Amino acid sequence: MVRREHERAVIALERRLGLSSVRTDEAALVAASRDESEAEVVLPAAVVVPRSASDVATILKVCAEHGAPVVPRGAGTGRTGGSAVVTSSIVLDTTSLDAVKSIERADGYAVVEPGVVTGRFHEVCEREGLFFPPDPQSAEWCTLGGNVAENAGGPRALAYGVTRDYVLGMRAVTMQGDELVVGRRTAKGVTGYDMTSLLVGSEGTLAVFTELWLRVIVAPQVVRTLLATFASVHAAGLAVEAVLRAGIVPRCVELLDELCCASVREIDTAALPPDATVALIIEVDGDEARCDALLERLGATLDASHARAVLVAKHGGDRERLWAARKVLSRALRKRAAHKLSEDVVVPRSKLAALLDDVRAISSREAIVMPTYGHAGDGNLHVNLLWNTPDERPRVDRAIRALFERTIAHGGTLSGEHGIGVMKRDFLTLEQSPALVAAQRAIKLALDPRDLLNPHKVLPRISHRAC
Amino acid sequence: MVRREHERAVIALERRLGLSSVRTDEAALVAASRDESEAEVVLPAAVVVPRSASDVATILKVCAEHGAPVVPRGAGTGRTGGSAVVTSSIVLDTTSLDAVKSIERADGYAVVEPGVVTGRFHEVCEREGLFFPPDPQSAEWCTLGGNVAENAGGPRALAYGVTRDYVLGMRAVTMQGDELVVGRRTAKGVTGYDMTSLLVGSEGTLAVFTELWLRVIVAPQVVRTLLATFASVHAAGLAVEAVLRAGIVPRCVELLDELCCASVREIDTAALPPDATVALIIEVDGDEARCDALLERLGATLDASHARAVLVAKHGGDRERLWAARKVLSRALRKRAAHKLSEDVVVPRSKLAALLDDVRAISSREAIVMPTYGHAGDGNLHVNLLWNTPDERPRVDRAIRALFERTIAHGGTLSGEHGIGVMKRDFLTLEQSPALVAAQRAIKLALDPRDLLNPHKVLPRISHRAC
Repeated sequence: MVRREHERAVIALERRLGLSSVRTDEAALVAASRDESEAEVVLPAAVVVPRSASDVATILKVCAEHGAPVVPRGAGTGRTGGSAVVTSSIVLDTTSLDAVKSIERADGYAVVEPGVVTGRFHEVCEREGLFFPPDPQSAEWCTLGGNVAENAGGPRALAYGVTRDYVLGMRAVTMQGDELVVGRRTAKGVTGYDMTSLLVGSEGTLAVFTELWLRVIVAPQVVRTLLATFASVHAAGLAVEAVLRAGIVPRCVELLDELCCASVREIDTAALPPDATVALIIEVDGDEARCDALLERLGATLDASHARAVLVAKHGGDRERLWAARKVLSRALRKRAAHKLSEDVVVPRSKLAALLDDVRAISSREAIVMPTYGHAGDGNLHVNLLWNTPDERPRVDRAIRALFERTIAHGGTLSGEHGIGVMKRDFLTLEQSPALVAAQRAIKLALDPRDLLNPHKVLPRISHRAC
Repeated sequence: MVRREHERAVIALERRLGLSSVRTDEAALVAASRDESEAEVVLPAAVVVPRSASDVATILKVCAEHGAPVVPRGAGTGRTGGSAVVTSSIVLDTTSLDAVKSIERADGYAVVEPGVVTGRFHEVCEREGLFFPPDPQSAEWCTLGGNVAENAGGPRALAYGVTRDYVLGMRAVTMQGDELVVGRRTAKGVTGYDMTSLLVGSEGTLAVFTELWLRVIVAPQVVRTLLATFASVHAAGLAVEAVLRAGIVPRCVELLDELCCASVREIDTAALPPDATVALIIEVDGDEARCDALLERLGATLDASHARAVLVAKHGGDRERLWAARKVLSRALRKRAAHKLSEDVVVPRSKLAALLDDVRAISSREAIVMPTYGHAGDGNLHVNLLWNTPDERPRVDRAIRALFERTIAHGGTLSGEHGIGVMKRDFLTLEQSPALVAAQRAIKLALDPRDLLNPHKVLPRISHRAC
């Protein structure tokens, strides 16, 4: 239900920004109410589309005056409800702020607006011989602003790090309408607190970005891809540990378990070789000599780790087919059941095989199909849960809690790249103490004293003495 | 002057921790009052030496009860007064918390206490074939806790990043006595706000570290060092820009200007070749093939950039001599005048030659000798100011302000690795807006509402509406 005072905010916004910037038709409200999670949502009072940074400040100020919560939104590809509307709110849709303002080649950074689609930015960089490594699965649709809000990762994080490692600074507006220019355009800098890192990954709860200064690097000359197949997921997990222990740092090490390999084959019979019960897709990059040396060491280590076969992609077509297999995966799994949830846990890399064993045990105990893939080199697994009927849901929930508990027991963390949003918020205290949650809540309220910017996200409401 | 209520805090601490943990003799108070800056200091009420993390919590709680400010302190090698005692306070000396608790080789991190000397940690890592890249100049004396508090850098930051890039998480105690366990032990993680990055570089104002989880990597197989000499600092600056534009990423590119080269020669005539008017020390690492390839490309780029000579260190002795030249520099410069101040500005790398020209112009306008060296690859210059008599001081101050103004005009930042402390606090608003300072102040007060933990550091007191 939309509250009266929020309707007044909508009227004020229409007056300030013009009717064309404020959408209240049901199609727009429905589309803006959810992301790609299963979060329970309500319809927002309006979807407001700023045309400039100054519009963003206006929207936040007007909403603050009316006490209306604001939910910032990019392309809505999030997996944990970060941009889901869970209480009467106004959605601030940043997708029309989509300019690549400049590429500062000599200084190694780009200035972009938050609504730029990540894949488009990759293309712009590529044309300049530059490289922006973060590559979330949804790169074709998601926006850089959303990536920064969630601190998105992707396969290449293994060698190159995550989105936060590529954000030098930004312009952002707080719920109080203050524009903050944070960070730097230099390689280093220790002036004041690291407000940039604080805003990155804050899931739209601390400020709305209006301009991002993103580090770009010189593109590697060569990329080489190999596929290693294994008889079991445990063997593949041990192989990943062996590769990393040897000091080999591929740019990615992606795992597909039995069910994932089978699901891929159902869509594309030729995508994976017939003996690929379990598969690792591994990529190295650099110059030709480095790639050759790394592939040789990788081959030896994988052989010693009981790989069934190690196949190096001979040309671009082979490489594309391997990645196509990885990319159809989410869709392929979705076909297997009416409902699918994708979790996103991370363990220290020595615990990878142990966690994979745990997933098998939980899956069999709860009788829930749990195909697993992910960025194995980072210890980051996307554990999927598939089910068909509502009566299975309690077992799904038990399986999720058990997965989180095992993850924490292994010294791991609840989320590698999807964020907490609303879907994992109530699990946060499995990992973090009340004092730490209270400290984060105090920081949230320091920047947004009335708790109006994307409320109910990330931090659970727990009791702890005022911090 | 020590305030009465702070003396009562000292008595309470003696009772709680025992007399041997609380020093009030003048020698201890004097030694603990200052760092390596020219900050104006007062004597603290006491120097308290915790034996455990729980002692740290006790000290902070007792001081909070008595309203006594606390100044956390490592080895006191800071350059901007971060651990200087500027108001009646109790110093919390972390140097006795100096255990390397574990090296988690398989998971790529180490667990250490904050008082571990950085150089000792380097040795521990080396013995394991591991590598902790941050290498501040004071590595032989400074502590890891101090490095984390200041987000220290060093020459190798060019390829490997700064201290923040190697802190996965930590245990820390707030001024309210709450222990926070922040961060993670995994390669990735987006659970909650990035409290780790916020605490790193907060210069002892937000919490006191009791345990650090530091990322360590596999050591490179080979390191190769070269010396390139130039006729002018401007030519050297352009050469650095050319190297980086070519996409070559050495692990360090250190610059020594005319005065620095001359000063080094006064201490060690053989350290640099006679034609080294201006010098760059450049290092590459990796495997043999990569180093060979990089050295070849470097040689060609430096030749094209009008290097007078490019000399590759043939054996370890040559390499050590080059670094010895770099290391005696600060001492060599100190011999040239009664007073020496070292600034620490950073500009985008395309502005390096322009900033070097500015330094020359400021030096000549104010008639202050300003030898300059530093991490040129990062655009991070240590601009030194030398003077002998008090009547020169106003010109020194004008030169510093002019240097900061030029740095900001080039899109740069006030500090690359020394921090803000008290020495640069009043310059912060040259770079940051009142709204940004207010936001940081709000975060400070969220974690330390009575402003007792290392007060008067980092953030200037400016008026801005309550944030």
